[in-house]
Amino acid sequence: MDDDVTGDRDAYMAGILARYRKTLVEKTKFHLGYPYNLDFDYGALSQLQHFSINNLGDPFIESNYGVHSRQFEVGVLDWFARLWELEKEEYWGYITNCGTEGNLHGILVGREVLPDGILYASRDSHYSVFKAARMYRMEAVKVDTLLSGEIDCADFERKLTERKDKPAILNVNIGTTVKGAVDDLDLVLKTLEKVGYTEDRFYIHVDGALFGLMMPFVRRAPKVTFKKPIGSVSVSGHKFVGCPMPCGVQITRMKHINVLSRNVEYLASRDATIMGSRNGHAPIFLWYTLNRKGYRGFQKEVQRCLRNAYYLKERLREANVGVLLNELSSTVVFERPLDEAFILKWQLACQGKIAHAVVMPSVTVEKLDDFVEELIEVRNRAFPDGDVVVPCIVEEVGPENCACSVHRDISSPKSPKEERKHFSSSNS
Amino acid sequence: MDDDVTGDRDAYMAGILARYRKTLVEKTKFHLGYPYNLDFDYGALSQLQHFSINNLGDPFIESNYGVHSRQFEVGVLDWFARLWELEKEEYWGYITNCGTEGNLHGILVGREVLPDGILYASRDSHYSVFKAARMYRMEAVKVDTLLSGEIDCADFERKLTERKDKPAILNVNIGTTVKGAVDDLDLVLKTLEKVGYTEDRFYIHVDGALFGLMMPFVRRAPKVTFKKPIGSVSVSGHKFVGCPMPCGVQITRMKHINVLSRNVEYLASRDATIMGSRNGHAPIFLWYTLNRKGYRGFQKEVQRCLRNAYYLKERLREANVGVLLNELSSTVVFERPLDEAFILKWQLACQGKIAHAVVMPSVTVEKLDDFVEELIEVRNRAFPDGDVVVPCIVEEVGPENCACSVHRDISSPKSPKEERKHFSSSNS
Repeated sequence: MDDDVTGDRDAYMAGILARYRKTLVEKTKFHLGYPYNLDFDYGALSQLQHFSINNLGDPFIESNYGVHSRQFEVGVLDWFARLWELEKEEYWGYITNCGTEGNLHGILVGREVLPDGILYASRDSHYSVFKAARMYRMEAVKVDTLLSGEIDCADFERKLTERKDKPAILNVNIGTTVKGAVDDLDLVLKTLEKVGYTEDRFYIHVDGALFGLMMPFVRRAPKVTFKKPIGSVSVSGHKFVGCPMPCGVQITRMKHINVLSRNVEYLASRDATIMGSRNGHAPIFLWYTLNRKGYRGFQKEVQRCLRNAYYLKERLREANVGVLLNELSSTVVFERPLDEAFILKWQLACQGKIAHAVVMPSVTVEKLDDFVEELIEVRNRAFPDGDVVVPCIVEEVGPENCACSVHRDISSPKSPKEERKHFSSSNS
Repeated sequence: MDDDVTGDRDAYMAGILARYRKTLVEKTKFHLGYPYNLDFDYGALSQLQHFSINNLGDPFIESNYGVHSRQFEVGVLDWFARLWELEKEEYWGYITNCGTEGNLHGILVGREVLPDGILYASRDSHYSVFKAARMYRMEAVKVDTLLSGEIDCADFERKLTERKDKPAILNVNIGTTVKGAVDDLDLVLKTLEKVGYTEDRFYIHVDGALFGLMMPFVRRAPKVTFKKPIGSVSVSGHKFVGCPMPCGVQITRMKHINVLSRNVEYLASRDATIMGSRNGHAPIFLWYTLNRKGYRGFQKEVQRCLRNAYYLKERLREANVGVLLNELSSTVVFERPLDEAFILKWQLACQGKIAHAVVMPSVTVEKLDDFVEELIEVRNRAFPDGDVVVPCIVEEVGPENCACSVHRDISSPKSPKEERKHFSSSNS
């Protein structure tokens, strides 16, 4: 009798899981809106799912709990510290649960180093930055952005000057969420210097969400490096690398972390992470991919993504869709489609009048072709008389990228040569 | 050539993983110190490891990202809301990354509801509680504990009275980290009332780390219930339930969450969680176990754990080891062994002069026998002349539990009947 019940229950649950798996396959196939690399195979690691792997507390200090993956975690951290040019004995870091945890950590370190510092961040920064300010009871100042989505350093200078008696804690974006814009770190540093800030009076957290990992592989891209006076860098692990669950990498300077930490005997571990119990599987996923692909493998993938993003931009422009693609970015911004079912199918992230597609390693040219064809079809269907009205998104993407009837003439006649400059020029 | 390199690399990595797996098996076998149920089989779910499952933002609000497990998450949350007696339309919650995130969330909600509230928590509270106060820039007051590890309500009354012009935010422990003590919620509520606090001037967060899930299955245990004026309850998912990675469940009242949230168009999701991207696998693990074991399955496991903990206490006492086992607890506190290798092997969590073992569903009587025998052996080895010196831990466990030469006479002569009362009596 009990066996029957168990059997029925097992069959019922297996049915639910099979149906669920089917929707996951479908949803994964038509995904374009979020910067997640959905193309990975961690079959070799499925043997580890039977273990409760937990990296309690600090990755560099052994705790008493033996079922951990600290050795993999430290390996991954070493790799990133090298990538961002910080010496082994001078860095500290850990694998976080997501990009938000990285931002929460970086800004907290900044606040502990400069307790009466004011947080500055561009209005295109990830919402977790302003959430941090609220959580930590910090004064936060929103700085304007340029059309590209980059921080407007003229506005930054004005706002900084007004408050120059207080230290500054800055969030600098290496790839904003919506437009994939890269803040000009060098200009930010120059602005600080100009207003009279010495290095002991500012702290910079670099939110490298997606591009923090891509940019080091792009020739002539400005470098994310600790040789500049930055305090911390965070990057997501589930984005470009790809991982079954969200995770991230946080690297900061050892000297800052001593301010934050205190001893907790229970764990036999210094308490400098935000979370106490930490997912021990994520570091192994990251270790596995870093080792399998290697530096060269990443480089190839980054180049392919940028190439495909450019291809998507061109196809949209040909189809008379307003479109913006920032240099060094694989985030293609375009008019928000009118059809909600289409947005849902392709899982586009939208904001106001624009939407974006992020070209990740899992996005092929074939997928992009399907997407553009369907987008045109959907648009034509919305205007059955054949007279398609292209919305004006000039405020979001600028006159040269808007395809509405007013701005079309400015944007369309570009020679292929001029376009190609977009990629070959260094940061302008 | 490239294939050769790939082949070599694959073989190298497979070797590392095989060795790693072996240590995990070993470490899992000899684990006693942390409250993790290491006995689970999620083989049926390994098919889902190929998907990047992410429950962005609020579990109750659909986001545009399609590869999620919100339906499983909400199912798990419903189960816990029912367990803790909060109506479906009155609760809000989410699956967290660990117990710390639950405490960070509960205390943040408390602070947003009562912005000038003072945080009160017993000194045996989890370190994340005081970490939260520091992060959130709240005034925090440490309250003394009784020998059992419970909050000392006389001290609480004194400290509360001194600050009665300010609202109170309380952390109440349902199972402290070290001693597994359960704070007396009813006495805490009475104290608040006595000092003159009405319900609009306090907020209670219940840290149910481990026992929040066990207590509902123990007859005559005081109830964790939202019928009492509490604001939030958190519990860990990887502890009693068992899960490959840390996770937790957070339940609070809907009316409180509206204070915290704001709209974030990018995600099409209300931002009331601490993390933005959230592990979508954890809810499926929890869903799977809750459904497979059911209420009755959990009840049986809880009873077995309490029985085995009592068995361990008895065996230690027979061996003349100072030992404390709180009622309703499966955390057995005893003298810190002198041998560091032994502590490491069994992965015991230590604090000062005491250590503890937590009897979880994965801990069998055979394992406990092995542990006790080895402990005795190690102790005898430390005193080769046969004259074992038992350390005095009277300050940690009280005279009736200390086995040192001074207190031995008080602790040992207990009739079996008297002992058994320990379990059958209701909370005293």
